[in-house]
Amino acid sequence: MKEKLLIGLDFGSDSVRAVLLNQRGENLATAVSSYRRWSEKLYCNAAENCFRQHPLDYIESMTQVLTQVLENQDKNAVAGIGVDTTGSTPCAVDENGVPLALSEEFASNPNAMFVLWKDHTAVEEARLINQAAKKSEIDYTMYSGGCYSAEWFWAKYLHILRVDEKVRKACHGFVEHCDWIVALLANSKVKAGRCAAGHKALWHESWGGLPPEEFLVSIDPLLAGRRAELYTETFTADVPIGNLSKEWAEKLDLSTDVVIAGGAFDCHMGAVGASIKENELIKVIGTSTCDIMTASSLTECIPGICGQVDGSVLPGMIGLEAGQSAFGDIFTWFKNLISYGSEVSIEKLSSEAEKLPDNDIISLDYLNGRRTPDANQYLTGAIFNLNLGSSAPMIFKSLVESVAFGAKRIADRFIESGVPITQVTAIGGVASKSKFVMQTCADIMGMPIRVAASEQTCAVGAAMFAAVASGVYSDINTAMREMNSGYKTEYFPNAAKREFYQQKYLRYLKLAKLWEDEVMSNVQ
Amino acid sequence: MKEKLLIGLDFGSDSVRAVLLNQRGENLATAVSSYRRWSEKLYCNAAENCFRQHPLDYIESMTQVLTQVLENQDKNAVAGIGVDTTGSTPCAVDENGVPLALSEEFASNPNAMFVLWKDHTAVEEARLINQAAKKSEIDYTMYSGGCYSAEWFWAKYLHILRVDEKVRKACHGFVEHCDWIVALLANSKVKAGRCAAGHKALWHESWGGLPPEEFLVSIDPLLAGRRAELYTETFTADVPIGNLSKEWAEKLDLSTDVVIAGGAFDCHMGAVGASIKENELIKVIGTSTCDIMTASSLTECIPGICGQVDGSVLPGMIGLEAGQSAFGDIFTWFKNLISYGSEVSIEKLSSEAEKLPDNDIISLDYLNGRRTPDANQYLTGAIFNLNLGSSAPMIFKSLVESVAFGAKRIADRFIESGVPITQVTAIGGVASKSKFVMQTCADIMGMPIRVAASEQTCAVGAAMFAAVASGVYSDINTAMREMNSGYKTEYFPNAAKREFYQQKYLRYLKLAKLWEDEVMSNVQ
Repeated sequence: MKEKLLIGLDFGSDSVRAVLLNQRGENLATAVSSYRRWSEKLYCNAAENCFRQHPLDYIESMTQVLTQVLENQDKNAVAGIGVDTTGSTPCAVDENGVPLALSEEFASNPNAMFVLWKDHTAVEEARLINQAAKKSEIDYTMYSGGCYSAEWFWAKYLHILRVDEKVRKACHGFVEHCDWIVALLANSKVKAGRCAAGHKALWHESWGGLPPEEFLVSIDPLLAGRRAELYTETFTADVPIGNLSKEWAEKLDLSTDVVIAGGAFDCHMGAVGASIKENELIKVIGTSTCDIMTASSLTECIPGICGQVDGSVLPGMIGLEAGQSAFGDIFTWFKNLISYGSEVSIEKLSSEAEKLPDNDIISLDYLNGRRTPDANQYLTGAIFNLNLGSSAPMIFKSLVESVAFGAKRIADRFIESGVPITQVTAIGGVASKSKFVMQTCADIMGMPIRVAASEQTCAVGAAMFAAVASGVYSDINTAMREMNSGYKTEYFPNAAKREFYQQKYLRYLKLAKLWEDEVMSNVQ
Repeated sequence: MKEKLLIGLDFGSDSVRAVLLNQRGENLATAVSSYRRWSEKLYCNAAENCFRQHPLDYIESMTQVLTQVLENQDKNAVAGIGVDTTGSTPCAVDENGVPLALSEEFASNPNAMFVLWKDHTAVEEARLINQAAKKSEIDYTMYSGGCYSAEWFWAKYLHILRVDEKVRKACHGFVEHCDWIVALLANSKVKAGRCAAGHKALWHESWGGLPPEEFLVSIDPLLAGRRAELYTETFTADVPIGNLSKEWAEKLDLSTDVVIAGGAFDCHMGAVGASIKENELIKVIGTSTCDIMTASSLTECIPGICGQVDGSVLPGMIGLEAGQSAFGDIFTWFKNLISYGSEVSIEKLSSEAEKLPDNDIISLDYLNGRRTPDANQYLTGAIFNLNLGSSAPMIFKSLVESVAFGAKRIADRFIESGVPITQVTAIGGVASKSKFVMQTCADIMGMPIRVAASEQTCAVGAAMFAAVASGVYSDINTAMREMNSGYKTEYFPNAAKREFYQQKYLRYLKLAKLWEDEVMSNVQ
């Protein structure tokens, strides 16, 4: 039988990437395209943590990368397309599931666009949701770490409804980026992916899907009637959404036999792309981190994480998600800060920081709030123990330590909650590029960290789901085994750093508590 | 009678400046010379707050500026030389009062050099002095704000004695920079100036001069016998030290009739140079600040300032000193931090910061510890409320606010302690150069601030004392009236900023308290 080809599409924060793989997992082509409007900083306000993306950015860049990876390839061999995106990145849509910003009226209204994962305009709405959940007989946040985040679906939905009357009136649903892309390619109605629904929209089988209308209305009457416009059923990503639509098939010169697999979040697909095993922590390290584990069973709800959802990573396993709101973003922020005169590089900073002795500058890594453990987007970053000798590399080193402390705190939470970690695997841009950062993470976490060989693990994961959805493989475990590309490096903790970092970690925790108490004392 | 000429010598942190004035206060010549070894960063370790200066730097630069200001002038008309220096900047000396670093054996030993005002290597010794003072029947720090600083004479003396056995054995005294320079020019024994002795060495008439031997030994037995090597009597700066020595007269082509006035600290002489009046706060704003007031009488000891000393500024008035450990130094630190790629200017930062709306980034200005109120050199700086949109000008603005908050805190302490402030006058480099900083100070302090016309107010003050010591004028009040050059600008507080800054100041005070408690909980 002729070998089949699979496409994985990975929508990141700044660009979309496509990979074309054969069914043995070999990479035949890769293409990347940056979102044009986004790169021009349109529709955003960084100082207010407002980050919106235009649906045309996605369509234009996706068309480009799909065309590019298919160039000079055997198009007839393409069996399926899998898709992952950032998330929770939802958008207000009309009665046909079309993003409002695609209509003329809303073409330049940021509230009618996708609200990017790292947008924190909905802090107040998240607070209201948590308040309502704690008052409710059933705590609907129980499978979402017991703490709903401003980065998630309902907070963003309510925020948009509250701040923009025109959007509120025109809007008949709120759709996650991953669910919209697959519906677009298949020209089908939106089918909700289990991953986004379970982790971000409080969907759970035990209460019959999304939380009941009464609960949603108790948060804000503006949510009345919104539940019914959404969905009850959800699907794991190995379930086909449909076939490639006629329009897209023509545009790409592909057959309408190509199967579109279900969409899911990038980190979840990335964990699959790295062939995740039970008790293995997969860290997707880029601008922020997403930390993924799977468990066959759990005796309790894990507090303060981004949720535990049956089938969100692998069908039949409970998928666990945690993460840090900013990681590589903090290095970029600092690089830009000190590039005020002229551009400097993170590589130069890293190589100088690497040579420094230990110092007592301590930073809190909350420059974009805290995702986990215990989401809190009111939090901001801080740098302590500065003196007139504090140099750029010294402060950079403390920022790197701060994100590693944040990473350790997440691992500790898993372990304390009865999910042992026997392997840490890192994927993502920072994992591949920054030895200094990865070594510091290994030193501070006190665990070896592997780096996956593929630099497109998320897209690979999407392609693996495409392989299952299109019938190339019978199930995702087989796809992971057959298409796996292993790891390329392993960082081992330096025992000589152990004691110093244990002490500094305790101080970090103490300062984090002090600062959080102070910040929250100013929030009504 | 022929008009007399006066020389004022002002030894700053980086350079010495000489002015040649006629007796009406007109400036005939100015010269500046940077200390050579210091500019090469010799004998210092900024990361450990260790700052030492070589006596040869002072001699070489002083010779240069004196020669320069006298060029083509009527040398026979020179009547007197006045001297001010930074302080407390003392040095270990031999039995003849010669700094040890001038001998071959100690020529490159930083512990045998002048310990610059901002050196903080003696934090532990300051703690011991405060501990002993609180246990003692008489609190010998009562006229020094009740809180002895690591920046001051006895802490530095004890530190040098403890860390360097060779210096300890060779040393027969510890002499302030201002007292040494005038003794050197007059080739006389060291005569202690009232200013340095009273503000920094715990000298007070009521306990017969320096604190008693038993008290000093209770701090550390290493201080045994050291009191007797020092002095009992002290002199205000209008009292002549002697005449210019034969050696210096020949070197400078001056007469040995030239009178050398007593030495004092730069900020004290600067206050005189700005013709200080009762209830006027004079702020000398440069790398750090020194805040000077005078009072005809006081009903209580003012807590947490750098002391209240009869005659330290003007004979017959109580001189009050306070200050901030870092001011312009913080802007330079930040400029250097963000100049990591290439040089940027504080002017560019200021002009961008000026245009910014209010923001909630809050900094603590303790990058060089805190001088007053309530000296604490364990303190370090911190920056709070950072997010990924925090830009260099935004952070710069918060740093400027932080030093203005520190300035307000000092003014508040004076007012609360029964010393009303009816006028604020600023002198020093920052006061002349930075409109943005001065406007922010006026807005935050809620008081108009005048900037003195002369940019050499300290040297002018020294020349005024030279005029009195050499008999040109009968007393310092007359000299201040006759040689006064007025002010050139006045900044008025912006009423629209009042409420915002009152709130932000309260938050600054709260964070300062939180951070200080945390820092001190880590000090044994």
